[in-house]
Amino acid sequence: MTGSNRLPAQPDTVKRGKPSSWPSRRHRNHSLKREAVVIAAARAFSAKGFHNTSLDDIAAALGVSKPTVYYYVESKEQLLFECFQAGLERIREGLRTVEDSPLSARERLNEVVRHYARAVASEFGWCMVRAEDQDLGPELSRHIKALKAEIDRGMRRLLELGIAEGSIEPCDTKMTAFAMAGALNWIAHWYRENQPMTAAQLADKFVAVFETGLLPRAGSQGGSRPRA
Amino acid sequence: MTGSNRLPAQPDTVKRGKPSSWPSRRHRNHSLKREAVVIAAARAFSAKGFHNTSLDDIAAALGVSKPTVYYYVESKEQLLFECFQAGLERIREGLRTVEDSPLSARERLNEVVRHYARAVASEFGWCMVRAEDQDLGPELSRHIKALKAEIDRGMRRLLELGIAEGSIEPCDTKMTAFAMAGALNWIAHWYRENQPMTAAQLADKFVAVFETGLLPRAGSQGGSRPRA
Repeated sequence: MTGSNRLPAQPDTVKRGKPSSWPSRRHRNHSLKREAVVIAAARAFSAKGFHNTSLDDIAAALGVSKPTVYYYVESKEQLLFECFQAGLERIREGLRTVEDSPLSARERLNEVVRHYARAVASEFGWCMVRAEDQDLGPELSRHIKALKAEIDRGMRRLLELGIAEGSIEPCDTKMTAFAMAGALNWIAHWYRENQPMTAAQLADKFVAVFETGLLPRAGSQGGSRPRA
Repeated sequence: MTGSNRLPAQPDTVKRGKPSSWPSRRHRNHSLKREAVVIAAARAFSAKGFHNTSLDDIAAALGVSKPTVYYYVESKEQLLFECFQAGLERIREGLRTVEDSPLSARERLNEVVRHYARAVASEFGWCMVRAEDQDLGPELSRHIKALKAEIDRGMRRLLELGIAEGSIEPCDTKMTAFAMAGALNWIAHWYRENQPMTAAQLADKFVAVFETGLLPRAGSQGGSRPRA
């Protein structure tokens, strides 16, 4: 966690669209400030846990009053859901990016893995992997499960495509997708942003782990790995 | 969760030692009852979460009074630690089992993976993967971290041995061990004992996922995997 996240400052991670796509300056400011609230919440939940964090804590981190926070989000539960969704959106973006790609299914899956690893290594990681355990109401829980199932389907589909076209070694696609998602989700338990390894480097290392497998590969004496 | 776990009944999972190793019947009864308390706690924590479970709940599940539970363990924190340790002990048992084995390091690592997967799929799984997040005191937290680090070292050592002897494809051993442990730990989030797949079947499937890797293997058209 570096830098201040007081409300008036624009958070690093906000992507500016083209000016013509902004309905109005007021609307843009509202979106930016709402995003700053969500990021501050993600950092607070990650540092102290959901139940130990109050909206007062989040307001204090932003240097604003609690009513100001309520102006942007209706409840702490809603905030957790927004954090979860913001993280998951990065993985969905990965799935969308490779949708019409000419690359092999394995390379497309690797791209999704990179998006996934970077998302879980971000400030949203904790919320992404813990949101489901936080006694949310039935509607938000259902929504979270549905979004997770969508990611799972996307990964399994790429595994199936890769096996069919020969770019991925035949495997149990369900178990492989579960193992990959588990390994990726667990990153939130050990990765910290102040580590020497960047999230992008970590993502590439995970791609290599999933690709290689433990069984020695024919003709790879001395360590070089064949690329299909 | 099947069967009753009322205190007078002997839990299924208790392994009887040889009679000669029992110091006395009284000591043995104490151990068995203490183990029943730990198993009941593991099930309650897993079903309701640590903070939502009281010692009253655990006593009620066993059909005894709260003072009876206190006779066996001093606090809820201690109980969580015992659950964690009971699960982790199964993985350590796997590491001990393969210590002097004539098998290749990869086959020994697979055996540890099988112990690991079965442990996380057991009633202790939830406690194993969540104990660290439950605001335990500094001493228990340190103890938990130390035990986890021991497992990590054991897995990395087998990876290094396997690479040196040629039974494991060269890889980043730290990242591979982290990815494997993450995938295995995550089993606690999705596996339920009443699933059609047994924990042993699940364990074998995870071994296959870790061994194979996504990259096609030379000469494996049609799906057969070469064994080194």
